[in-house]
Amino acid sequence: MQATSNIIRPARHDDVGKIVAMLADDPLGRERERTDEPLPECYFQAFAKLDADPNIKLVVAQDGRGDVVGCLQLCIMPGLSSLGASRGLIEDVRVAADRRSRGIGEQMVRWAVEEAHARGCKLVELLTHHTRLDAQRFYERLGFSRSHVGMTIRF
Amino acid sequence: MQATSNIIRPARHDDVGKIVAMLADDPLGRERERTDEPLPECYFQAFAKLDADPNIKLVVAQDGRGDVVGCLQLCIMPGLSSLGASRGLIEDVRVAADRRSRGIGEQMVRWAVEEAHARGCKLVELLTHHTRLDAQRFYERLGFSRSHVGMTIRF
Repeated sequence: MQATSNIIRPARHDDVGKIVAMLADDPLGRERERTDEPLPECYFQAFAKLDADPNIKLVVAQDGRGDVVGCLQLCIMPGLSSLGASRGLIEDVRVAADRRSRGIGEQMVRWAVEEAHARGCKLVELLTHHTRLDAQRFYERLGFSRSHVGMTIRF
Repeated sequence: MQATSNIIRPARHDDVGKIVAMLADDPLGRERERTDEPLPECYFQAFAKLDADPNIKLVVAQDGRGDVVGCLQLCIMPGLSSLGASRGLIEDVRVAADRRSRGIGEQMVRWAVEEAHARGCKLVELLTHHTRLDAQRFYERLGFSRSHVGMTIRF
């Protein structure tokens, strides 16, 4: 089944609950998020901050019925290297559990790569947890290389 | 020899040439940069863009004689995940070839981690090329884990 009837659009304030639910519906995310009702205010504060930042694009995939079925965040970062090219960083790619394997992730990632390219990036990068082998194969299929080691400190 | 006499300070317009020289002095960077005189205008345009962005901190290490001996770029990115915490991304860490192994890189990276923490990040991340084994050991010594695979597309 193709994702042709989905649209990719900027996330809105009233999508925050659905996005957080997708972030939490994951072995790693479960430990880090809170999905109690009402949703903790910290998420809405963070949404206001990223929504005001012209270099951050949080988008959702919306299906033909208007349901939010995926999310992705793209950050465009100016920098000096590669002749002063910007770089794109893709984060927080999630597809609703009951909508996986239908091309939604691919549609969002292709959107992000094209958007980054259109905004002058010469490089798009992302980190995927070393245990997410399916994700790594997915990104390779979309043209990404396993060129780097992704290193993190969590406070 | 310790780096105690160095200071970390925001990069200025007149540091751009020295920073680009450090970015170019590297097997991977050599292919991507141009260090001819006068320095291509694209670098100054990129500097103006990043300097105007409150979420980007390009800093240099300056030694006791006033020489620029290192550089690092930190990007602070708002986002919804981890209870709406921001994330820090470290990029373009370089130390002048004749000043390596003196703690300058460590001083810059520790600065970046502290700055990210002070600005509310719960995570600091970076990508290091899979061939840079020394860099990976360096970051592990500073508390980073090889938790992720870093994937890239270059246009």
